[in-house]
Amino acid sequence: MNRQVVLKSRPEGIAQERDFAIVETPLAELEPGEIRIANRFLSVEPAMRGWIADAGNYLQPVGIGEVMRSLAVGHIVESAHPDWKEGEAVTGWFGWQELATVKPEAIVRRVMETDLPLSLSLGVLGINGITALIGLTRIGEPEAGDTVLVSTAAGSVGSAVGQIANIHGCRTVGITGGPEKVSQCRELFGYDEAIDYRADGLGEAIDAACPDGVNVYFDNTAGPISDTVHPRLATDARVVICGTASISQWDPWPTGQRVERHLLVKRARMQGFVIFDYANEWEDAIATLAHWVREGRLSYAEDVLSGLEACPDALAGLYRGENLGKRVIKL
Amino acid sequence: MNRQVVLKSRPEGIAQERDFAIVETPLAELEPGEIRIANRFLSVEPAMRGWIADAGNYLQPVGIGEVMRSLAVGHIVESAHPDWKEGEAVTGWFGWQELATVKPEAIVRRVMETDLPLSLSLGVLGINGITALIGLTRIGEPEAGDTVLVSTAAGSVGSAVGQIANIHGCRTVGITGGPEKVSQCRELFGYDEAIDYRADGLGEAIDAACPDGVNVYFDNTAGPISDTVHPRLATDARVVICGTASISQWDPWPTGQRVERHLLVKRARMQGFVIFDYANEWEDAIATLAHWVREGRLSYAEDVLSGLEACPDALAGLYRGENLGKRVIKL
Repeated sequence: MNRQVVLKSRPEGIAQERDFAIVETPLAELEPGEIRIANRFLSVEPAMRGWIADAGNYLQPVGIGEVMRSLAVGHIVESAHPDWKEGEAVTGWFGWQELATVKPEAIVRRVMETDLPLSLSLGVLGINGITALIGLTRIGEPEAGDTVLVSTAAGSVGSAVGQIANIHGCRTVGITGGPEKVSQCRELFGYDEAIDYRADGLGEAIDAACPDGVNVYFDNTAGPISDTVHPRLATDARVVICGTASISQWDPWPTGQRVERHLLVKRARMQGFVIFDYANEWEDAIATLAHWVREGRLSYAEDVLSGLEACPDALAGLYRGENLGKRVIKL
Repeated sequence: MNRQVVLKSRPEGIAQERDFAIVETPLAELEPGEIRIANRFLSVEPAMRGWIADAGNYLQPVGIGEVMRSLAVGHIVESAHPDWKEGEAVTGWFGWQELATVKPEAIVRRVMETDLPLSLSLGVLGINGITALIGLTRIGEPEAGDTVLVSTAAGSVGSAVGQIANIHGCRTVGITGGPEKVSQCRELFGYDEAIDYRADGLGEAIDAACPDGVNVYFDNTAGPISDTVHPRLATDARVVICGTASISQWDPWPTGQRVERHLLVKRARMQGFVIFDYANEWEDAIATLAHWVREGRLSYAEDVLSGLEACPDALAGLYRGENLGKRVIKL
């Protein structure tokens, strides 16, 4: 038998515990070409909200009754495919379940960083680290001396963005929620300044931390935080649109301060990107990130939940901001 | 004596007739290095609203009691500078006045297209044409087969954008106000489709005209028109932020539909630009534009007012949408 977390109902807004069910399913024999993976760690990411929503996204929404889509890392326990051997560690689209039976297309890669913890393949050496590195460098185009401002600065993407910007010789300023994450930003992730957006005076705090304006804004939130940042962009600023974590619903479509005048006066650019478009750059990115981790230049934090039972509330908890670090579920 | 149009009061919103005064001023003898120009045509542009406003802009606001800043074209009538001779036609920052006494820095260029009407130096061969060419090609990056959507499509910038996009092999769709401008877009400016935003169903009309989405949106308006366009961007779309003509006030800052999710899902880019940053490309741009005008590939329309008395209401009239073509004032 296999145990799986399936989507039970389509939520308005962020999926809650009640929107998922844990079911037991019998396992079939492998068909030729199939591979069976025992998941060791399941990923929990903000983007899952979009994968569940009916509204426009870059992937088809997860269907009702389907296993929740997720990246995972595990070991091959059975293979009916000549290219994949029992015992290999792999990451891929294995879903929130104990055992995944997949075709090779679902496998993203073999884990080659066997000297580093397996769970990093879902975080700093996975989609989060890749998103930070490619989004910052390709869209944000940071230059030494730039001021780089990051929202959700202590998150699994944001924390890597700040450190990679430091490696590029930038001044880094993080925006995060609560004093604990502010400390983490300063002490673990090396931000030059960290700002608690829940405290009063976000605008004044950004002014003080970015006296020459913001050259690169790595935007994981949209919402009121971004409304406060946009008037503070420097000339020729680049805004990387990576996520919209602070927007809880898209129906009705939310409004905010108009950006056009800021972009015009500052000759600034806002650009969205989706990391799946850069799949051919992932291996190089992971090699770079792993090198920095081994050198101690790229720190990470993990928030490890235990057991499949933790899945249904894990995404809602992420949006409640309760995790300190990349959230994964250990099976 | 010289006659000048000066800013009398700083308006909230768009400057009206009452915000200007016409004054007579005695003329001094030229100082060494000065040049005196008899203005033949004065320019009226939407951007003047920003030059007058107190709010953040890319130039210092025009001071109360100062001659209204404007581009103009005229002939040198007296020169105390060895590089500039009486009789030469020049364009520059000569202001809304009959005679301008300036240093060479105020001169933008000698008019070399003496086979074409002098007034074109303020329109299709001036800042409007340059803005269209450089904004579309450098920021919009049109490719053959792209659908290019233009707001204020019949305006002096927009009409050139549409035609230059056609020259690049794009499908062109114009948004404009009223049936007369719709006809002008189709018949004079060669748009494949033209849409009257004042009629009902703008979104449906854009859907019908752009069945594969909008690859390049050349945005001269912001406001509700842009809110309707953004959900219809194609993947990898480019939005050129050139002007914000539909926004009448920036205090309080206007709100609109949030753009972040559209930019993210469509991997799209919004970018502002200010044509004065590209001054070293202007001569090449004018040569290209003049070539297209002579070949009959680039049409233009002019709205010529007469006499300095027309100045005070000319900008307000532009924002009332009463002109059909580039508005200039003939002296």
